[in-house]
Amino acid sequence: MQIVRGKVAERIVWGQLEQGDTVHVTSGMLGERTGETLPLSALTLLAPAEPSKIVCVGRNYLDHIKELGNDKAGLPTEPGIFLKGPNALTEPGGTVAYPAWTENFHYEGELALVIGKRASDLTPENALSHVAGYTCANDLTARDKQKPDLQWFRAKAADRFCPLGPWLVPGLDPADLGIQTRLNGQVVQDSRTANMIFPVIDVLVYVSRYVTLEVGDVVLTGTPEGVGPLQPGDTVEVEVQGVGVLKTAIGNRA
Amino acid sequence: MQIVRGKVAERIVWGQLEQGDTVHVTSGMLGERTGETLPLSALTLLAPAEPSKIVCVGRNYLDHIKELGNDKAGLPTEPGIFLKGPNALTEPGGTVAYPAWTENFHYEGELALVIGKRASDLTPENALSHVAGYTCANDLTARDKQKPDLQWFRAKAADRFCPLGPWLVPGLDPADLGIQTRLNGQVVQDSRTANMIFPVIDVLVYVSRYVTLEVGDVVLTGTPEGVGPLQPGDTVEVEVQGVGVLKTAIGNRA
Repeated sequence: MQIVRGKVAERIVWGQLEQGDTVHVTSGMLGERTGETLPLSALTLLAPAEPSKIVCVGRNYLDHIKELGNDKAGLPTEPGIFLKGPNALTEPGGTVAYPAWTENFHYEGELALVIGKRASDLTPENALSHVAGYTCANDLTARDKQKPDLQWFRAKAADRFCPLGPWLVPGLDPADLGIQTRLNGQVVQDSRTANMIFPVIDVLVYVSRYVTLEVGDVVLTGTPEGVGPLQPGDTVEVEVQGVGVLKTAIGNRA
Repeated sequence: MQIVRGKVAERIVWGQLEQGDTVHVTSGMLGERTGETLPLSALTLLAPAEPSKIVCVGRNYLDHIKELGNDKAGLPTEPGIFLKGPNALTEPGGTVAYPAWTENFHYEGELALVIGKRASDLTPENALSHVAGYTCANDLTARDKQKPDLQWFRAKAADRFCPLGPWLVPGLDPADLGIQTRLNGQVVQDSRTANMIFPVIDVLVYVSRYVTLEVGDVVLTGTPEGVGPLQPGDTVEVEVQGVGVLKTAIGNRA
């Protein structure tokens, strides 16, 4: 079963997808079934989250730290966290215009999760029970604005810089999932979540010590090695084992 | 007239405050009057905003850049922007516990504004017409976590790190307002918004180039010189000319 969010005419619905084609409409992300069913083809899928914030981890895979030359200062001893706002979400299958103000726009495939139960001061034992489900994310990055700017604002948090989806899969064990990014069909990132420096549980325990995670909040868990530049006309696919494929098109410069 | 948000028993209301004591309840921040009136004393004031994000400017007053020794790399050529989430809001008159995980918790008095009209790609001419009103903010900061951490996450965006209020004042000219912070009654910050490196209009034009500002979003415009450490038991007041006083108590370590 997958949890989907989509548009049907002017209506936005949440539902449970069964057998890959039947959506049982629910009263919300974790709500009860209303009795209505729809074929999946009737929905235009939306990003499967209504977050108050998107919490992201930077530098969580050793090979990615090395490829950007960020290993000289030693490895991180704590997760490096930054924020995007809800303005960053992009629907699965969506198009993101290549921003006119960057000359080095990068994909970053990631495992993401959505919070299902309000969370403060999580413990390693209870952290995963606060997750509604797992999905794929593309942490789009204006690489040339990361170092010169005071903080990663336009580099990471600009409008539509967070494609998310295609749906949520509840109950996965996030400890050792395959994660792959393909650029125009070519594999460019290929790793496993077991290579994270701070596994999902550690990230949730750390983050929830400082901020209350609300139902619907999104957590991105970092990208493995293989990040690289996009061009207008490109298609990027992020695939997480057991979840599915998040596809994003890069549009013209705008 | 001030725009207030408050709690009356279990109900949260928006209203227009007239003559300092009568609240005309409205259907929302910028909504119509419903006909109901309440004495101000019937309301427990809340932070006057329901944001999807809180956008902040770092290093926007020259004297503050100098006091933290951040002027060696030259002055900023663009506003340095960072984010807090809605979890950071604290009501006027509220208490913020001194976080157990910092040894150097600072106040930062600031002029803030709340967006009244959805805003993308603002121009110098139309920027201020997208502001619902002006208020006071305290950009609470765990100073000892700012430099060691990858990004300003726990340093700036932890729960309750953004006292805001006491209300919104529409139609102010933000170009040259007095701004003062008092710690236990002693003046510790005393400046004018005319000393900003990037005035309010420039900040709005810059930010809205990268992110869409939604109705209710909050923008903090930076702090002048005089930042300093707080202790449990302290009282901080931030006063912006033409707005009023935002009072916050610092609670025990927790």
